[in-house]
Amino acid sequence: MKKELDLQKILEIIRKVVKQDTGQEIMLHEPCFRGNEWRYIRECLDSGWVSSAGGFVDRFEKDLARFTGARHAVAVVNGTAALHIALLLLDVNAGDEVLLPALTFVATANAVSYCRAIPHFVDSDMRTMGIDSEKLADYLGYMAEIKNGTCYNKRSGKRIKAIIPVHIFGHPVDMDPLLDIAGHYHLQVVEDAAESLGSTYKGRHTGTLGRIGIMSFNGNKIVSTGGGGAILSNDDVLAKMARHLTTTARITRTWGFEHDRVGYNYRLPNINAALGCAQLEQLPRFVAAKRCLAQAYGEAFKDLQGVDIFTEGDNVNSNYWLNALLLNQEYAMQKDALLQLSNEAGVITRPVWELMHRLLMYRDCPRMDLSTAENLFDRIINLPSSAFLGEHYV
Amino acid sequence: MKKELDLQKILEIIRKVVKQDTGQEIMLHEPCFRGNEWRYIRECLDSGWVSSAGGFVDRFEKDLARFTGARHAVAVVNGTAALHIALLLLDVNAGDEVLLPALTFVATANAVSYCRAIPHFVDSDMRTMGIDSEKLADYLGYMAEIKNGTCYNKRSGKRIKAIIPVHIFGHPVDMDPLLDIAGHYHLQVVEDAAESLGSTYKGRHTGTLGRIGIMSFNGNKIVSTGGGGAILSNDDVLAKMARHLTTTARITRTWGFEHDRVGYNYRLPNINAALGCAQLEQLPRFVAAKRCLAQAYGEAFKDLQGVDIFTEGDNVNSNYWLNALLLNQEYAMQKDALLQLSNEAGVITRPVWELMHRLLMYRDCPRMDLSTAENLFDRIINLPSSAFLGEHYV
Repeated sequence: MKKELDLQKILEIIRKVVKQDTGQEIMLHEPCFRGNEWRYIRECLDSGWVSSAGGFVDRFEKDLARFTGARHAVAVVNGTAALHIALLLLDVNAGDEVLLPALTFVATANAVSYCRAIPHFVDSDMRTMGIDSEKLADYLGYMAEIKNGTCYNKRSGKRIKAIIPVHIFGHPVDMDPLLDIAGHYHLQVVEDAAESLGSTYKGRHTGTLGRIGIMSFNGNKIVSTGGGGAILSNDDVLAKMARHLTTTARITRTWGFEHDRVGYNYRLPNINAALGCAQLEQLPRFVAAKRCLAQAYGEAFKDLQGVDIFTEGDNVNSNYWLNALLLNQEYAMQKDALLQLSNEAGVITRPVWELMHRLLMYRDCPRMDLSTAENLFDRIINLPSSAFLGEHYV
Repeated sequence: MKKELDLQKILEIIRKVVKQDTGQEIMLHEPCFRGNEWRYIRECLDSGWVSSAGGFVDRFEKDLARFTGARHAVAVVNGTAALHIALLLLDVNAGDEVLLPALTFVATANAVSYCRAIPHFVDSDMRTMGIDSEKLADYLGYMAEIKNGTCYNKRSGKRIKAIIPVHIFGHPVDMDPLLDIAGHYHLQVVEDAAESLGSTYKGRHTGTLGRIGIMSFNGNKIVSTGGGGAILSNDDVLAKMARHLTTTARITRTWGFEHDRVGYNYRLPNINAALGCAQLEQLPRFVAAKRCLAQAYGEAFKDLQGVDIFTEGDNVNSNYWLNALLLNQEYAMQKDALLQLSNEAGVITRPVWELMHRLLMYRDCPRMDLSTAENLFDRIINLPSSAFLGEHYV
């Protein structure tokens, strides 16, 4: 085997797959506004209802519920706000521990902090990049104990209240074993589907498999509302309370303004929902294009020794939000060189987020062995993944 | 004097002032999108940058800083988020007390709660509807003590860290005596200018008189971005930290994603900022129209016994965000009847917010005598105040 990867060759392959001319900058992920975006926003402006009241918020929620199969969708300002509310709804309190992957975007851990709870980091599965349930079961087996139907960390003495599986880059976590473990240990499940709108696990949409799921419609997501997010749930009571908590806990009075608890100003503005309605109409097309792009990357890199394109597992259908090139272990030290080469050439690539347990504010949080997450961190490079780049292949 | 107000007469006067046909519903406050809103949003969509990165956010911040005279403006998702960050920046911590009026929108108190601090309610001044500095000075004189440059509540033993003057309905608080008191007691000042964009105090824009000010651009405000807010400050360090905290405390690396503390996802999306840029261009016109409308209400109600239209004090220039009809004390019991009559007739009027110390979650918070706030609550009815209703008078 060669001692070094041919980085120029990798760059050439990327350019060939995305079919963009040399010299043209290729972003990591751009939204695509070619549907009814303009029409709906115009309608919204003409109606004068641009804020949290207005028809597009209701419609966006209904469309999202229909698409995902969730009984309820509650639209909020972003995925972080959705996570915060989801944890509050499941009674995550000050001093509780919440299990989440070290390999995730910082919002997952921050939402736990907002509840004054403690992130407790768990390792990833090489096959899904999400939580490794087998390793988790072993860990909980010696670290956790159940007393009166509540799970405790034997070392810290603290309650372990919930677990947040994150569908990294849109790839569904293997949810069945994870739900089994959660059931056994009485852990509430908040599914972080921020990246996985359009991804399914055994035919069911991600975000609808736990008691609550959350989504994001940030500018870099498969569907964008500028900034936006949603809480999904099949539970009528939770969904009603989500709506209440995200609208300053306001009580409906004939004319008055009353509030029955400390609430949040988290509702999605109508103008952002208008954008969302137009985007959701195009979602099936976006998913198809992104899956084709992933396949094209897979084909193109098939014969290149030393790298792999990450592909979905069995029983799942991924939206391939961000394609990941995995350098073989022996070439991991070339990651920065490849990032430099490609970015300087205008082909925007990115490493994965710094692992949570290495961030200043989360260094002292409890954690298990995180060797797989650390290994993935060393080897992942995200490739340009905008839906329109895959349209040639549909 | 008559025993009862002629409510039909009041309704007639309102209709006459706003010059709208009988039968047409007249909202309390509608935004007005007749400028470059569409053009800028279209530009924003065409650029593909709808989220937190993008040129309109920068431009909106610069325009806002120029208009208010603040050295820095940091655009965020809403006024509540702005307040939350402002308090964090001024080191408001768990267990601290923060002084704020009982007569305000619930967000003012909620932001204090988000910092795990304790709202401490103070009374209002009949002339400004904002904090009564004279009464506050008396209260602090016997309730507070200064030890080592820090103010403490002698009863609770807790640190009193900050004070939040709120410019109610756009009417500037009498800031000079309030700033004197804050200086004397070492209190940080966060100016809640959510309602007072366009209002000045002795020639200086509200929101720029304390160390930090906040604004709101919700759908019901004089300028709307759908949902939006801003942090204003003349302090370079505070502004830089505001930007950092509202963008997930992300550190700029060549390609990586690092964060050095628990941050927030609070930046204003670019598409909302595009709306804001167009709205700010029209702000001087909106203020002029609203001031004319207020004058027209004042003229029209001048000769009606038993009610007054609230007018600005000396040395200030109010944006008259919401006009307030004040029932004389002896007619206060007719408030609900007038609300019912007008709303049923399609003339939307509203009582002021329920006072903070009467809300379930804030009932046990410390407070001074709140008799003026209670009296104002009994007597205020907000009248239709959209800028376009005043255009006839400009």
